[in-house]
Parts: sequence; C-alpha cells; structure tokens
Amino acid sequence: MTKNRRIFTTVLRLLALAATVSATIVMVTSHDSTNVLNLTFKAKYNHSPAFTYFVIVEAIISGYNLIILLLSSKGSLWRMVIILDVVAALLLTSSMSAALAIAQVGKEGNTHAGWLPICGQVSKFCNHVTGALVAGILAAMFYFVLNLLTLYNVLNPLFVVKPNQLPWEF
Amino acid sequence: MTKNRRIFTTVLRLLALAATVSATIVMVTSHDSTNVLNLTFKAKYNHSPAFTYFVIVEAIISGYNLIILLLSSKGSLWRMVIILDVVAALLLTSSMSAALAIAQVGKEGNTHAGWLPICGQVSKFCNHVTGALVAGILAAMFYFVLNLLTLYNVLNPLFVVKPNQLPWEF
Repeated sequence: MTKNRRIFTTVLRLLALAATVSATIVMVTSHDSTNVLNLTFKAKYNHSPAFTYFVIVEAIISGYNLIILLLSSKGSLWRMVIILDVVAALLLTSSMSAALAIAQVGKEGNTHAGWLPICGQVSKFCNHVTGALVAGILAAMFYFVLNLLTLYNVLNPLFVVKPNQLPWEF
Repeated sequence: MTKNRRIFTTVLRLLALAATVSATIVMVTSHDSTNVLNLTFKAKYNHSPAFTYFVIVEAIISGYNLIILLLSSKGSLWRMVIILDVVAALLLTSSMSAALAIAQVGKEGNTHAGWLPICGQVSKFCNHVTGALVAGILAAMFYFVLNLLTLYNVLNPLFVVKPNQLPWEF
C-alpha cells in the first residue's frame, strides 16, 4: 500500500513537472504581430504582468519539483515537503487564475470597460496562451490531487488509525 | 501551549471572517457611472467574470468560516477541517489573483492590447474594488498563516516529537 502510494505520488510529480515545463515553454514562445491602420501591433507574453507572473511561477515550480524528484524519498525532509507542496499549489493556482482572467478579456473583451478582444488579430499568440493555460490548469490540478492524497494519508480524517494513536491534538 | 494555539487559530479565523465579509460587501456595493460623448458608461462588479468569481468565493468562505467557528473545537471533525482549510486557501488565493489581474488592467490599462484604464472615469468604483481587494488579500494571508500553523503542528517538520512517534510513513 505504501509502495503503491509512493509510485502514485511520483507519477503525479512527473505529470506536474511535464505540465509546468510545457506551460513555461509554450507561454515564453508565444508571440505574434499584426498590422492595424499601418501600425504594427505586437503581442508577447511579457506585455502583461499576469502572464509574466505565470511564467515565473511555472518555472520556479518546475525547478522545485525536479529537486524533490531527485531527492531520496526516504529522507526525513518529507514532512517539510508536504508544507512546501501546499505553498507550491497556492502559487500555481494564483498564477493560473491571474493569467486565465487576462486571457478571458483577450478572447472575449469587456464591452462595459471598452476593452476589445485581441484574439482575432493575433490568433497565433492566443493559441499559444491557450495551450500554456491548459498546461497550467493541469499542473495546478496535479498538485491539488497530490496535496489531498498526502494530507489525507497524514491526517487520516476517516479514522483508519485510532484517534489516540495520533501525536497531536486540538 | 495547546490552549494558546487554539486561541490564536480562533483569532485568525475571526480576522479572516471579517476580511471575507468586508470583501464581499465592499465589492457588491461597488458601482459608478460616467458620461463619455453623451454615452452613459456604467461600472459594476458583475460586468467582470473575475470580480463575480471573487464575490462568490468570498461569500462561500465567509459561510464556511462561520460554520467552523460555531462548531465545537473539541470534535473529531478537526482533521477534515485541516484539509478543507487548504481548499479554502486555494479558492481565496485563486479568486483574489484573478480579481487583482483585472483590477491592474482597470487601473493601468494595457497599451499593447489597446485597453485603456477606466479608473479616471469611474474612480468611485475603483476605490471600492481596491478596498475589496485589500480585504481579499488579507483574507488569503490569514488563511495562509492558519494553514502553515496547523500543518506545522500536525507534521512537526523540525522534529520536536521523535520521528518514530508519528503514525504514518512515506
């Protein structure tokens, strides 16, 4: 059971790593340009603070995840890793939500604010951003499942272990 | 020590409740209108999906937090509450990040995308949104500290309890 759990955790980490690396690469390589009334209109990820934040977080979590995968899974560091995993999930969710909010305006616009959609003009850029966001959402989901699994095992909320065996109290 | 910890946790929950309730009320009551070229330009929170998502999450977490505060702190439900608290922190961080990303465009605009800032026209609306976002950021911070504190106590990452006293393994 413990061995299966460890394999499942490693698979989740590998999937999350693939997702964050893809999200970083696809977002960084997103650029397009178009001509509107003789003016060249360029689109690049670093024109938006939310997309820049997204790239920074995805890159940091890729590095963190790689380090954790390379560390021995039998070390006593693993209790700290559970807390760091929660922080990683918060960062991934935050950056993905901010990027998604901006991408939604880019695709749909906002008539009330007078913000026009830009995807018609720079569709190549929009496709890249969509791809990066799908990878970012998957990464956040993998980390969410990883956290739920680890916390469930640690906290034993459905009393598989008797309550008095737990070394902490509230 | 345990009593102090419980008092600190309750204070954090009360602060988070005050922050989420304030964020909900201040965001929902935010509206303003202005005339540009004989056209009335109205601003309201539900004109943006990110702000609507923010209000829904802040309201849900207010309700959740109130229920947890009213429950007895000695019940055995508290292990599940730790997991639910992590989910609450993820939701708060996600909605706050999305709303912040849109508010940044509202305040600064985005010259690359041709999105003009709107805060000059609807400053009353912008002030309300800023207030709601400050409350939302505080709520996410209180929940972050609450999670760190609880997980630290449960996981004991710096070995105050001997490792072999812990009922779980990796």
